[in-house]
Amino acid sequence: MARRLSWCGHANVMAADGSVGLFDILCRIWLKPGKTVLIEEPCYDRVVHLLRHYGANVIAIPMEADGPALEPLNAAARRGPVFMYTVPDFQNPTGTTWSSTKRQHLVDLARTHDFRIVEDSPYRFLRYKGAQEPSILDIGRDVTVQLNSFSKVIAPGLRAAYLIAPPHTISAAAKVAESTYVTPGNFALSVTGEWLRRGFLGDQLAALGHLYAPRLEAMVSALDEFMAGHRYVRPDGGVFVGVTLAHPVDAQRLRKEASNAGLDVADGDGFFVSKPSATFSRLPFSSMDEVTVRRGVEVLSALLGRISPSTKVEQVDPE
Amino acid sequence: MARRLSWCGHANVMAADGSVGLFDILCRIWLKPGKTVLIEEPCYDRVVHLLRHYGANVIAIPMEADGPALEPLNAAARRGPVFMYTVPDFQNPTGTTWSSTKRQHLVDLARTHDFRIVEDSPYRFLRYKGAQEPSILDIGRDVTVQLNSFSKVIAPGLRAAYLIAPPHTISAAAKVAESTYVTPGNFALSVTGEWLRRGFLGDQLAALGHLYAPRLEAMVSALDEFMAGHRYVRPDGGVFVGVTLAHPVDAQRLRKEASNAGLDVADGDGFFVSKPSATFSRLPFSSMDEVTVRRGVEVLSALLGRISPSTKVEQVDPE
Repeated sequence: MARRLSWCGHANVMAADGSVGLFDILCRIWLKPGKTVLIEEPCYDRVVHLLRHYGANVIAIPMEADGPALEPLNAAARRGPVFMYTVPDFQNPTGTTWSSTKRQHLVDLARTHDFRIVEDSPYRFLRYKGAQEPSILDIGRDVTVQLNSFSKVIAPGLRAAYLIAPPHTISAAAKVAESTYVTPGNFALSVTGEWLRRGFLGDQLAALGHLYAPRLEAMVSALDEFMAGHRYVRPDGGVFVGVTLAHPVDAQRLRKEASNAGLDVADGDGFFVSKPSATFSRLPFSSMDEVTVRRGVEVLSALLGRISPSTKVEQVDPE
Repeated sequence: MARRLSWCGHANVMAADGSVGLFDILCRIWLKPGKTVLIEEPCYDRVVHLLRHYGANVIAIPMEADGPALEPLNAAARRGPVFMYTVPDFQNPTGTTWSSTKRQHLVDLARTHDFRIVEDSPYRFLRYKGAQEPSILDIGRDVTVQLNSFSKVIAPGLRAAYLIAPPHTISAAAKVAESTYVTPGNFALSVTGEWLRRGFLGDQLAALGHLYAPRLEAMVSALDEFMAGHRYVRPDGGVFVGVTLAHPVDAQRLRKEASNAGLDVADGDGFFVSKPSATFSRLPFSSMDEVTVRRGVEVLSALLGRISPSTKVEQVDPE
């Protein structure tokens, strides 16, 4: 962090309560109804919701194991987007990490077609193995703003986040902030500042890695064991793995039967701009021990065996 | 407070970081560009700014010593407003408190013409003498939502506020909050909750009254002594008194000369929807001791004697 911030002055940083609030401010500054925005698909659901609120023309780029599919990304870049929103490290909701090649490719596209990149990095610090990719901000400071949050590394309820951006963007964002929420929570930000000043971050990340890494391993091996026919990435960090089923299922029936079996399967529709044809689930692993993670995947797999494959998702079998 | 909240359940209250943020949410829920909103004139500047942001058709009702002028209020009420925004206790920026008659009149108007009242009450607890008027919420629960904040009674940087409203408004507001800032600062809200639970509010209000009441007295007597020809109210609480000058002045020159004399005169334009013809100043008294308050008014008065009266505010005297 010290290294990243070495090129950053006060004029490049704005503290805030949370990074979704910061993204909301960026939308206020940059968007008008009908403006084009690129996102990953699937994409963090609150971002999809906010872009709809601002009336953006959203183009969703399908995700591959190492980042976005390049052909649709290239085509979309030519359509005059205002910005692309991305979570390039352990993406929400798939767990995908962009390769450095694809990061560089996006920066090149942004420079050629004159659009911005909004890099949302809440999971970047949660890498349990493998080497860190360069951040998109590091590759393309001239075209990138970065959102970051301490919610995933200190405490979710603390409310401490920050934006790194060029000074003119910080000025514009600060003006909107002052008009809409006056000031962020200085109490929480002071606690965070003191926590960082005392050098607690390194030990905390090591402790989280010690706790979460075996849970991630349990998730990936359970997926390999029970759900090998479906599509998912094997992340080296973060807090969840997204699974795209090989066949659509009756999602409502799946959720209901899963609930009866004690398994909470969330609705994945919010991660998509268009109808996701009932094939996507985001599986969190950080809050459950290894046995529970494995058991969850096993139960899900058994239910899918009973319910799918079904290509007629409209029909609900009579009980 | 216990008495007010006795008719309130959890479904009627939403906690938040600040009341401007809550007002922003109400605008998101209720406003579309071109919709009519009533405000007091002068009005809290951030609210004017936000209403402009949302493209509202803002009708400003002139303020008298006991609340809004009734004839323009009645006329404006017939023009289909979505809501009226008001600070009926020790108003920002004039210090005005609405009489109970005018509060009841507004509630009757809101019921007749089917609009809402947004009652912003940050200064209500800061009454140093006289009897409390009923809150507009107490008179018209069916048509009123109330914004409240602990910034003026616990600490400005704490960030702890709340909205009291019908359950369907709370649901809609909570949905917007969840989409834009996810959750308020639970740390600060927990501290506030514990502070209230331990019964600190009464002693704190007594202490603030002990500190601020003499400063208010100093402000009002200095105004009576030095600025009797101008217009201002004599509030029984709050943190400032607004002064409307008898004649326009060259506000820029006034600010410059005041600054040279060590007096910071803020620009009053933000409190007005239309151009305020350079006659309004908000004079704060809570952060200065009695001697400083008196001296400030004396210096201002001397400057005004030198600069005004001038009806040609465009002309700047050559130095």
